[in-house]
Amino acid sequence: MIQRHFDEELADLKKKLLHMGSLVQEMIHLAVKGLVEQDESMAKTVFGMENEVNGLHIEIDNIALRLIALHQPMAADLRLLATVVKINSEIERIADLAVNMCESTHFILAKPLVKPLIDLPEMAEIAQKMVSESLKSFTGSDVALAQRVLDEDDRVDDLKDQIFRELLTYMISDPSTIDRAISLILISRNIERIGDHATNIAEDVIYMVQGRDVRHKTKEMEKHKY
Amino acid sequence: MIQRHFDEELADLKKKLLHMGSLVQEMIHLAVKGLVEQDESMAKTVFGMENEVNGLHIEIDNIALRLIALHQPMAADLRLLATVVKINSEIERIADLAVNMCESTHFILAKPLVKPLIDLPEMAEIAQKMVSESLKSFTGSDVALAQRVLDEDDRVDDLKDQIFRELLTYMISDPSTIDRAISLILISRNIERIGDHATNIAEDVIYMVQGRDVRHKTKEMEKHKY
Repeated sequence: MIQRHFDEELADLKKKLLHMGSLVQEMIHLAVKGLVEQDESMAKTVFGMENEVNGLHIEIDNIALRLIALHQPMAADLRLLATVVKINSEIERIADLAVNMCESTHFILAKPLVKPLIDLPEMAEIAQKMVSESLKSFTGSDVALAQRVLDEDDRVDDLKDQIFRELLTYMISDPSTIDRAISLILISRNIERIGDHATNIAEDVIYMVQGRDVRHKTKEMEKHKY
Repeated sequence: MIQRHFDEELADLKKKLLHMGSLVQEMIHLAVKGLVEQDESMAKTVFGMENEVNGLHIEIDNIALRLIALHQPMAADLRLLATVVKINSEIERIADLAVNMCESTHFILAKPLVKPLIDLPEMAEIAQKMVSESLKSFTGSDVALAQRVLDEDDRVDDLKDQIFRELLTYMISDPSTIDRAISLILISRNIERIGDHATNIAEDVIYMVQGRDVRHKTKEMEKHKY
């Protein structure tokens, strides 16, 4: 009876986490849409959604800790709950990044766009897909899907480098574009970090399922590459 | 007897966490020193220390989970262990940021410095102090000290804005400085994020002690300010 109650609460907790995940995906989408369509009204919606995400963040943390305290789960369930707490933090940070993007957009839209935006929306789309797939890998305990998320992060990094090089050319040839170009570079770094958070989620899922820690191994490989 | 054993393990866990905290403070210090003194050899030391931090990160997570599973602590101890897990993540991210700073430095040092560095080291010093104080507030359950860490974050943000404005002036007057100036801006963003992580730790401590969630309230206030 107690076990059944625990399972129900756990299912409810996962549902809340996924709802929070859907919210931040929509926030990323709106933040980029507001930039591409030069529409500042999107930012208000994003700020409103952030409040909901913040509420869920606190609620999920509290429920997870209460479940651990009341039901004292062993091994597998404990690892699952620890993963929920970690993913919860990652999602909340993604929401922060979407808000940062809206704030940078505010400065960019004060003047005409430096260039048509093509790579940035593509980069954001991949990052958003990574978030979606990393959460799907969690609900399905799907290590292969989690592994694909890790691979996609390279594509995001490549786009970030490409965007940086292109904007650098613009800035050098026309210094009046510098402030807007830097804002675009900062937005691309925000998207990169969203990809990193999805990668963290995927690594947490692999660790949860396999009990094997890939977290630092993959980071080691991509770092120190200069 | 079991309780005494638990307390010993908990004390040992805290000690490991503080050791990890000292390591990242040294990493921040060396990363900035390498930039100011234009000495690339610091980066190697920082990369080596990151490996140690990564090892501790995994170890601390595992010990905290094992303590929860074996001893099934109630309320206060459970909250303490949850805080250890959270602070553990924050410290590991600070180490990542110190590594990022070394990587940006590598590009900057290929050419002469854009300007003498004064604000950046000052900003880093405050951020490092915030890390130190946030950890001290954890070991002492010192809410007043944690609150001071939150206040110091404003100073870091002001310096970041000041650095940005100054470098913008350099770039506009001499476009050949753009790539190095952007690297300095990115380093200042890394330092800003170190301050944010110290703020997260301070907020976690306040939550741990008071059971009151300041995490989103303070963030709300500083955001949306445009």
